[in-house]
Amino acid sequence: MKKIFILLTMLSLGAELTAQSRATWIWYPGDFEVWLSNRMQNRRTERGSFFPPFWRMDSHFVLVDFHKVFEVPAEEQVELHVEGQYNVKIDGKGISGYPRTITMPAGKHKLSLKVFCQDRVPAIFVKGKSVVSDSSWLVTYEDKEWIDASGKASDQSGTTWLSAGSWNFDSSSTPPSKFTLATTPQQAVKTEKTADGLLVDFGKETFGYVKLEGLKGQGRVSVYYGESKEEALATETCETLDHLDINLPAKKYTLTSLTKAFRFVNIKFDSGISLDKVSMLYEYLPVADRGDFRCSDAEINKIYDISKYTFHLNTREFFIDGIKRDRWIWSGDAYQSFLMNYYLLFDSPSVTRTLLALRGKDPVSSHMNTIMDYTFYWFLGISDYYLYTGDKKFIEQFYPRMQSLMEFCLARRNASGLMEGLPGDWVFIDWADGLSKQGAVSFEQLLLARSLETMATCAGIVNDKDGVTKYGKLAEDLKSRLFSVYWNEQKQALVHSLVDGKQTDNVTRYANMFGIFFDYFSEQQKQGVKKNVLLNDKIQKITTPYMRFYELEALCAMGEQKHVTSEMKDYWGGMLKLGATSFWEEYDPSKKGAEHYSMYGRPFGKSLCHAWGASPLYLLGKYYLGVKPLSPGYATYVVEPALGGLKWMDGKVPAPSGDIKVYCSTTEIRVQGIAGRGVLRIKSKTKPSGDRLDVKSLGSQIYEIGIAPHSTVKVKYSAL
Amino acid sequence: MKKIFILLTMLSLGAELTAQSRATWIWYPGDFEVWLSNRMQNRRTERGSFFPPFWRMDSHFVLVDFHKVFEVPAEEQVELHVEGQYNVKIDGKGISGYPRTITMPAGKHKLSLKVFCQDRVPAIFVKGKSVVSDSSWLVTYEDKEWIDASGKASDQSGTTWLSAGSWNFDSSSTPPSKFTLATTPQQAVKTEKTADGLLVDFGKETFGYVKLEGLKGQGRVSVYYGESKEEALATETCETLDHLDINLPAKKYTLTSLTKAFRFVNIKFDSGISLDKVSMLYEYLPVADRGDFRCSDAEINKIYDISKYTFHLNTREFFIDGIKRDRWIWSGDAYQSFLMNYYLLFDSPSVTRTLLALRGKDPVSSHMNTIMDYTFYWFLGISDYYLYTGDKKFIEQFYPRMQSLMEFCLARRNASGLMEGLPGDWVFIDWADGLSKQGAVSFEQLLLARSLETMATCAGIVNDKDGVTKYGKLAEDLKSRLFSVYWNEQKQALVHSLVDGKQTDNVTRYANMFGIFFDYFSEQQKQGVKKNVLLNDKIQKITTPYMRFYELEALCAMGEQKHVTSEMKDYWGGMLKLGATSFWEEYDPSKKGAEHYSMYGRPFGKSLCHAWGASPLYLLGKYYLGVKPLSPGYATYVVEPALGGLKWMDGKVPAPSGDIKVYCSTTEIRVQGIAGRGVLRIKSKTKPSGDRLDVKSLGSQIYEIGIAPHSTVKVKYSAL
Repeated sequence: MKKIFILLTMLSLGAELTAQSRATWIWYPGDFEVWLSNRMQNRRTERGSFFPPFWRMDSHFVLVDFHKVFEVPAEEQVELHVEGQYNVKIDGKGISGYPRTITMPAGKHKLSLKVFCQDRVPAIFVKGKSVVSDSSWLVTYEDKEWIDASGKASDQSGTTWLSAGSWNFDSSSTPPSKFTLATTPQQAVKTEKTADGLLVDFGKETFGYVKLEGLKGQGRVSVYYGESKEEALATETCETLDHLDINLPAKKYTLTSLTKAFRFVNIKFDSGISLDKVSMLYEYLPVADRGDFRCSDAEINKIYDISKYTFHLNTREFFIDGIKRDRWIWSGDAYQSFLMNYYLLFDSPSVTRTLLALRGKDPVSSHMNTIMDYTFYWFLGISDYYLYTGDKKFIEQFYPRMQSLMEFCLARRNASGLMEGLPGDWVFIDWADGLSKQGAVSFEQLLLARSLETMATCAGIVNDKDGVTKYGKLAEDLKSRLFSVYWNEQKQALVHSLVDGKQTDNVTRYANMFGIFFDYFSEQQKQGVKKNVLLNDKIQKITTPYMRFYELEALCAMGEQKHVTSEMKDYWGGMLKLGATSFWEEYDPSKKGAEHYSMYGRPFGKSLCHAWGASPLYLLGKYYLGVKPLSPGYATYVVEPALGGLKWMDGKVPAPSGDIKVYCSTTEIRVQGIAGRGVLRIKSKTKPSGDRLDVKSLGSQIYEIGIAPHSTVKVKYSAL
Repeated sequence: MKKIFILLTMLSLGAELTAQSRATWIWYPGDFEVWLSNRMQNRRTERGSFFPPFWRMDSHFVLVDFHKVFEVPAEEQVELHVEGQYNVKIDGKGISGYPRTITMPAGKHKLSLKVFCQDRVPAIFVKGKSVVSDSSWLVTYEDKEWIDASGKASDQSGTTWLSAGSWNFDSSSTPPSKFTLATTPQQAVKTEKTADGLLVDFGKETFGYVKLEGLKGQGRVSVYYGESKEEALATETCETLDHLDINLPAKKYTLTSLTKAFRFVNIKFDSGISLDKVSMLYEYLPVADRGDFRCSDAEINKIYDISKYTFHLNTREFFIDGIKRDRWIWSGDAYQSFLMNYYLLFDSPSVTRTLLALRGKDPVSSHMNTIMDYTFYWFLGISDYYLYTGDKKFIEQFYPRMQSLMEFCLARRNASGLMEGLPGDWVFIDWADGLSKQGAVSFEQLLLARSLETMATCAGIVNDKDGVTKYGKLAEDLKSRLFSVYWNEQKQALVHSLVDGKQTDNVTRYANMFGIFFDYFSEQQKQGVKKNVLLNDKIQKITTPYMRFYELEALCAMGEQKHVTSEMKDYWGGMLKLGATSFWEEYDPSKKGAEHYSMYGRPFGKSLCHAWGASPLYLLGKYYLGVKPLSPGYATYVVEPALGGLKWMDGKVPAPSGDIKVYCSTTEIRVQGIAGRGVLRIKSKTKPSGDRLDVKSLGSQIYEIGIAPHSTVKVKYSAL
């Protein structure tokens, strides 16, 4: 094990050295994310018409001050690259004009740049031998220091400096404004001639630019995109299309469309036009899979693979909801992507980009995406981000934005201190027929309680002692009121809502299943909820993969993996049986044929590639392989494998310091650990055995085996 | 009089008809102003180095929804021009693509456009026969309406709609982003050859683009700008310069600089270069003078003319502080420009543009320009704007921004409820040696009290009853505390400050003179202040025209015009005697020669053309001609002429419904009124006489004579 340890130490030392001398583009933290999200979220069209989001879009700060104090070993030449109009100062003294290189003298010196840029994010790239731009620079959008009539600076500065934002823009020639995703050419699997054009099948759901190759002639070309063949053929009702009026009489050209989601492309053109071939450029975020899962059940393996593909398609500039529709960042959808990410990619920049784009700027004038629950998921997303990655810096930088968002929420409580929808507040919960949003819904209080717990934790991280007390107390109060107000002893469940201060008769799954994995119930309440709600067919069923995510999570959290395996095979397996090549926004097994494609009153309104359809990634990693961090950044963690009826499974789960590998059959478990301290928790008929194992019995046939840093444990046991 | 009345009625009817059918570019209100101010305020350079403001610069909303419901008499074709990416809907139904013309069907229909634009302000220009874009359209940046899974819209909208912003962009081909000021060519009055170039004198302070005509050759051209000859010649210390590396070997070219302020231009060039001539393009805001003043004293007339020129030079995209430096919008400086404007231009768009640019967007994270007093002047500016123009619409649109700014202030009071500088708060008051900013300064409380009174008034306008009560009470409390806390009975004056809750021994002019024209003092206190402060040479003197403005106003308000005439001749006349062609940022008669040009520790740091130097415009209009609105928009007004030692004066003061003309000698007064109801108030030894006069004696030789709407009064009297 020594060898691995040394290697990792060297890697992390290496990373530090690189960070010190590697120049990268920097900006005001959060601003590139806001700018890029404006660009991305305003790319949607519906039947050729621009279809932007309805919520507020923010902007970057247009005037930003950057500085860092360097100890320069020997005079050096420093290149400057800037997005915007700028000035440069060394030790506060301005340099005339817009220099592209400067000379930094030896010794301790402060280098400052101030940049104005309206259309793009003010950004700099500074590259010398020791003087480079990176996230250790300090930035502000507001300098609260001034001079008196004699030119003397004020004695009290009120300026707030944050650490600069950065990502992977490590070349002077690719500033943030030139950001693009990667592309790769792909060919159709089938092209059919139609009466007036071509019908092209790319074999599976995909995303990118359609290329019309060898286009010649004069007239109109219409391109109808379909996630299903039916949609591509339904020229009057398909959701996306392009009309192109071309005039290419002389010679053949290749035309490339804007990005679209499709499997089928139906191209119709006037008689004067010819077209050789249709291909595409697949567009994607280049990020590698770190998690993996294989098991004895081929259908589950297929479900895992299609989940991965679905997730990749929706992991782009940001975690978006669906690639055809809405192509927007919805907080509730993104929250699930965050969780899946921790079990597949562990790509933190995608999480923070999305969190920052969602949060935008102050003032808070509406719930996130206008949805009350979506505001709370944002807090939950931060809670998880910190738990999985241990990134304190992010909390430190953005705690003020957490505070102002929470103040917005707290100011919207009703007279009894409960969240209730005011005009302009969308209480979403789920797409479900007849679901009541009236009054104070229990589900929203539960999410607020968890958000307040998150605030208390983060207040602790930034040493805001008043915040720790205030948010902690608010969380405790609200949690106790959940039970004094919503718990119905007779029904052994939380009721759906209070209307005019009175419990409604309605019990829904939402608050009850979240209560399970939030661990808000006593053991007795848990069993009541399981019997009376989760496994009770009389309670309104959930039809969206979005809420199935939480429903199955709650069942898993109660050890019902076997039941979940069969549900997964029914539900996701059901979509596969209908030929799905990615997972859908919604699936109702009772529907037939093209009925499956309709939603929102439109025949092809449904998205057939929705991020929230990929939840098996999360369930299989967290509740089958059973890997969960116990403290921030996997400093400690648990591995609690559960086969759920499978004969064996073999996989890995990414963590900051490496991948945790788990193999589990009914008789053998092997876990390869990481830098943190892990514990393998298993149920076994007999005491688990193996070389040099530290086995502790917890009673009830439950055993814990320590996993030392960077070690592997191999266990023989007898599955219950 | 009947004739004039009918004419005016027709004019105003005409204006309405025009407004209905005239298309103009529209945008989210306040956004063009923010965008333009970013552009303008980021044009300053200091010795060739970009010199942006240090405070926060905001941005426009990038995604804006526009709509209006029209009664269309007959189907019509409508042109659309849009800045940005957009969609168009008629009655909520999208039209494919980016149409440039649409057909509006006859009948009642809603036309909506939604526009995304990052670099410029989303703006539209819609022009049909009856369907046109104007400020009657409604706009929002945040649509709080959504759909359920069936596509049905929510029943409760939380969307806030404002009326669209507009100005004078009445042609489809000149969208807001193409805004420029007007220019006109001007010639130098003198050009001297120097050892290595030319020294050019434009005869007076000016602003614009320098044109290097007939430039040929290869090498460096350096242009040194000077508001004084000394500055232009001081190549090492002049404040602004340009270095141009040119390569024009073949033929003569004309090069045009960026805009600068100067009277002298010193051009030096390498020996390989030749230059025929230097001229300029004078840049200005085309806005006509409506006010006027002529009198028996030639020096006062000169002062008035140079004040006008100074004011015009600083009235540009916005009311700026100075044309050389800072070329920024400072609230305290702009406040004085607003007041001067009411007596010269009466150009409301310049006032509202400036108020909106200053206010920017929420959240408020700092005082305006970081200065506490400057925040308060903004409220005072709104108070005056409403009084002079009667524009309720502006208050209705921007009351929320007034509220959030006031909440920021109220949250920064100390434990005793007084304003005291926190880190980041610049307590400016004035440029004055040794002026203490410690503790709670009386001057700031006075400004806050007046700001609170403004809030109470505006709350009334927008029917915010709670606001009327809350702000009214806060204003009353603070006003009474001004006297319980700061008034010193022995000194018969307000003391300068409280430090640690105790009165300091210091008395300054600031709070005392503002107390006079705010009318906060009793008659006895007023006399005490006049004797012990205003006319007391032991109290630290004021050296900036900025504070001279208020000092002289206070004296005028107490009837000391004669004293003010002599002060004006000393102070402004003093600058004229030194050859000033525009009025300065600061003037100290004890300085000599080029000493006058230094400030902020730099030999040419002082601005020689500063808006606040033009205050005679205001004093002569308001306190000599004596014209003041008594109720919003001059519905009622007073004319209270005071010759201040002059033999006669003749002038006019603009009002919304026309100009009020005043002639006054020691024996005769003529006033031509406007639509409102005026009163002429005069002091006379004998009862004033004239045809059909309605004379009322107020005792103490004071008489009031009614001025009926659109009438002229001619009065014989005997000046006291």
